[in-house]
Amino acid sequence: MATQRVGFLGLGVMGKQMAQRLLKQGTEVVVWNRSADKCAPLVALGATALATPAEVVDACSVTHGMLADPKASEAVCLGADGVASAAKVGKSYLDHSTIDEATGARLAAAVGATGARFLAAPVSGGWRDAAAGELLFVCGGDRTLFDEVTAPGASLAVMGSKHWHVGESSEGPARAKLMLQIMMGTYIAALGETLALADKAGLDQAQIMDMFDSSAMANPISKAKGQLMIDGDDRRNYAPNFQVYLQQKDLRLALQLADDLAQPAPLAAAANAQYVAARKRGHAHDDFAAVRAAYD
Amino acid sequence: MATQRVGFLGLGVMGKQMAQRLLKQGTEVVVWNRSADKCAPLVALGATALATPAEVVDACSVTHGMLADPKASEAVCLGADGVASAAKVGKSYLDHSTIDEATGARLAAAVGATGARFLAAPVSGGWRDAAAGELLFVCGGDRTLFDEVTAPGASLAVMGSKHWHVGESSEGPARAKLMLQIMMGTYIAALGETLALADKAGLDQAQIMDMFDSSAMANPISKAKGQLMIDGDDRRNYAPNFQVYLQQKDLRLALQLADDLAQPAPLAAAANAQYVAARKRGHAHDDFAAVRAAYD
Amino acid sequence: MATQRVGFLGLGVMGKQMAQRLLKQGTEVVVWNRSADKCAPLVALGATALATPAEVVDACSVTHGMLADPKASEAVCLGADGVASAAKVGKSYLDHSTIDEATGARLAAAVGATGARFLAAPVSGGWRDAAAGELLFVCGGDRTLFDEVTAPGASLAVMGSKHWHVGESSEGPARAKLMLQIMMGTYIAALGETLALADKAGLDQAQIMDMFDSSAMANPISKAKGQLMIDGDDRRNYAPNFQVYLQQKDLRLALQLADDLAQPAPLAAAANAQYVAARKRGHAHDDFAAVRAAYD
Amino acid sequence: MATQRVGFLGLGVMGKQMAQRLLKQGTEVVVWNRSADKCAPLVALGATALATPAEVVDACSVTHGMLADPKASEAVCLGADGVASAAKVGKSYLDHSTIDEATGARLAAAVGATGARFLAAPVSGGWRDAAAGELLFVCGGDRTLFDEVTAPGASLAVMGSKHWHVGESSEGPARAKLMLQIMMGTYIAALGETLALADKAGLDQAQIMDMFDSSAMANPISKAKGQLMIDGDDRRNYAPNFQVYLQQKDLRLALQLADDLAQPAPLAAAANAQYVAARKRGHAHDDFAAVRAAYD
Repeated sequence: MATQRVGFLGLGVMGKQMAQRLLKQGTEVVVWNRSADKCAPLVALGATALATPAEVVDACSVTHGMLADPKASEAVCLGADGVASAAKVGKSYLDHSTIDEATGARLAAAVGATGARFLAAPVSGGWRDAAAGELLFVCGGDRTLFDEVTAPGASLAVMGSKHWHVGESSEGPARAKLMLQIMMGTYIAALGETLALADKAGLDQAQIMDMFDSSAMANPISKAKGQLMIDGDDRRNYAPNFQVYLQQKDLRLALQLADDLAQPAPLAAAANAQYVAARKRGHAHDDFAAVRAAYD
Repeated sequence: MATQRVGFLGLGVMGKQMAQRLLKQGTEVVVWNRSADKCAPLVALGATALATPAEVVDACSVTHGMLADPKASEAVCLGADGVASAAKVGKSYLDHSTIDEATGARLAAAVGATGARFLAAPVSGGWRDAAAGELLFVCGGDRTLFDEVTAPGASLAVMGSKHWHVGESSEGPARAKLMLQIMMGTYIAALGETLALADKAGLDQAQIMDMFDSSAMANPISKAKGQLMIDGDDRRNYAPNFQVYLQQKDLRLALQLADDLAQPAPLAAAANAQYVAARKRGHAHDDFAAVRAAYD
Repeated sequence: MATQRVGFLGLGVMGKQMAQRLLKQGTEVVVWNRSADKCAPLVALGATALATPAEVVDACSVTHGMLADPKASEAVCLGADGVASAAKVGKSYLDHSTIDEATGARLAAAVGATGARFLAAPVSGGWRDAAAGELLFVCGGDRTLFDEVTAPGASLAVMGSKHWHVGESSEGPARAKLMLQIMMGTYIAALGETLALADKAGLDQAQIMDMFDSSAMANPISKAKGQLMIDGDDRRNYAPNFQVYLQQKDLRLALQLADDLAQPAPLAAAANAQYVAARKRGHAHDDFAAVRAAYD
Repeated sequence: MATQRVGFLGLGVMGKQMAQRLLKQGTEVVVWNRSADKCAPLVALGATALATPAEVVDACSVTHGMLADPKASEAVCLGADGVASAAKVGKSYLDHSTIDEATGARLAAAVGATGARFLAAPVSGGWRDAAAGELLFVCGGDRTLFDEVTAPGASLAVMGSKHWHVGESSEGPARAKLMLQIMMGTYIAALGETLALADKAGLDQAQIMDMFDSSAMANPISKAKGQLMIDGDDRRNYAPNFQVYLQQKDLRLALQLADDLAQPAPLAAAANAQYVAARKRGHAHDDFAAVRAAYD
């Protein structure tokens, strides 16, 4: 495969590692960052730095964006000298920020209107995964673009170990993520319910958790949250990683979706009531392991 | 540590591997089996075979039993020339069969009445784990006996990788197992609920399952059951491993326990209703992955 | 209709009124009571008093029993000189005590074995209803007997305003009563949930209750329990009429029945969890309106 | 009390009866209707008819509006020659239409901005109740206005038998109504669950319903819906009075409110799942008694 050239916008903690991974695997990379000084380490590795997102899009057929938040995503894409101003037939843009559905839809419409292709491609994983090319990408949008960038040696294949195309619309990734969130919310509420019952039954919670971790159900998130629950008689021990009110908000969104689709979701509804009870007891901003407190 | 000698009663698929593991790790083993011919392979490895359970108990300070079912456990322990007939102060007996609470209580009482020590020690794992000495033991009964047999080099330490002492009573292991069962029942019902919702939301169930398997929630049982659910439009595909009606029976026992202890268990109650619904739809004797059908 | 003669065993608060009602409506009544002095007021009204249940059965083709509890019911029917000792083809016995299923089954079997007919006929209503002939009878057992005693002018018609035959077995009335109990348990839990929500929403609970009482949902039990809930910030105000733990026990029985029949009952299961939560918070022996406390 | 004069806008089926009631009880009434011919019968009873809402407001200190829908309410209040154009300090306007929260808020703001007083006062009851002066009014808005119009002999006292002031805001009545709706939704779902269980238990549903109707739980709406459920094996028998999807929408609104207030509502959540299941089975537009079908 001939050397390819891709654009990369946004060189924060994650973006820097992603662009570096591309360079180290032999891809030619053209970068841009709001604060230009962040480009230097990549230029040292062989990247070319340009002055605006539009110049990057002009120079590359495929450009990636990894911005801090929806507002930044929107500015880089729709602002002056932004992606959309240079996009046209033959150009492609992938946004990897975890943007909300509404912002995603606006970007998809604006880029699509120029004749360019768009893919919402939010990423899972941390900077170590980025450095190792082991990110996970959940993509929604143009299928041909997805196929091209995930082909062996292409940019998404180089940066990640898993790629899913979950539909032609930019809302697909948000829905897919919601499915994982209701699983997580229900699993962890069930864990809290069981540990509370075990405790009441005179069993040792740490022993039950150890048996669980030795079983075919063992998984890292349950292990971590179970430990927090056992440690957490004291509210201060629920270190806020993902907060109760956020988990409950995701369950509410899932229940709203279920209602809209005429699909009953009684377990998610029962789990939601427990996260609401945890909020009632003052745990809204504690880690969602604090759902355990709904059983006290 | 000096060579120790232990008794082993019951040489079925599991018992044979457990006794063999003891022999291969340098323990002197005295065996008995209802059909005497099953002793031959172990004698070939150095074991001594005796004619009755009583003779084995007489010859060893610690004896293990691994019988097929509660009836066999009871016969070997309480029958003519059984364990109890030779038990006395200084002797110890461990029953590894998954016996029910009532049978366990009868054995504990009968052995205890002789002055001997008793441990209910049901086992998790298959014959491969037995051969590798990687079984899991959940034990209830005499604590000093537990400590002795799990000391480095002692019989339970040689046969298993994990040992938990969950109380002085033979009912402890049953309660602990119930805790794992309600976790399993609720997890798998939540999985069915989510996959049904994903399907209705126009998402690809296999993709959602693949994302799940790539997440921090990934675990072997959810992976296996999720696959069955996706394959299982046709009832015949739900291979009966652990059946719907058995999973529902365990949830009912857990709910009864929760009621008795004045401890609410709303998620287990909601999950139970879904297994009942699956029974209503004709899936009582399918694998419990068929809880998915409650959402059709 | 020619004057009929019926036997009546047990002249407590209820039995006295029932027998009196029969006498005042022109029925010839033969009575017996463990303490013979309680017969006097009825003899003054024209009744004949005899010395044993057996003598009463001997003297009458149809005999009614209204005893204090299952133990008394059993003694009067199965004891020395009891109903069963005189029963034979051509005789009939109705037990109006709220006896449990097991006792009912024993009485039905013993009376039936003599060739006599039996009807379990537990009663709803108080002594004022008894005096006015407005009791409610839920009957299980011999259908021909039911038809005869509920014919115009016959004993059950004279004593009650409603009679239901719910099956040939003495367990029918118990099951029917369970249906009313789960309705009651779920209605009152829903009332508590709504009043708690109204309160949190800044609405006046008494106003909401007043609107409810002015609506097509208005009913005496909800009105009474709603009032208790509004008054009951202080636990002492929950006067024990029907206690939390008894209501929860009935819900558990109903859920057990639902499980046995493979019929999901998710609302009853959710309501049960709230009564369990009320027990957890120390309200086991308060009036079941205290389910409201599960929402605090 | 001196004769008072009130304005009345909107003479449809309900408005005509309400205005007539005022006239017959000795109130002087000034009327307006979009189609002027509907004023004639009231003029025959002594009313004065004027040409625009503004003229009516100008002529009376208190004016009532009973319009067909939010759009009509808005036109009559905010349109040319509407209520707001003549409103000023010293004037008062009551809207009795069941308007949505948003429309109510707009009217309250527009009328309030003129210095006039406003009361959202939706009505319960039919035209017969209107003729008898037995309507129910749930009011939100100016408290002094509420006190004046509900004083003995004043307009709201003449037209209705019950009046509740549920807060200073026009959203109060909507929230209060939601409380009654979740009660109704949960009660009727519980009824369906119980009848389905009774049927499965071999009991006669009509008998159970008859016992219910003879109990302290008896209420008109449960009686009517229970009858529909028993008759309704055939979907056509679920006459659409209040439809499944509307009941479910109200439950969803209530659950959203409960989530917002951090107040768990597990029974409403379980009931909601059953209405969703009824929609899934094709009953969205049948009477909400069709929630019974969720249990088939």
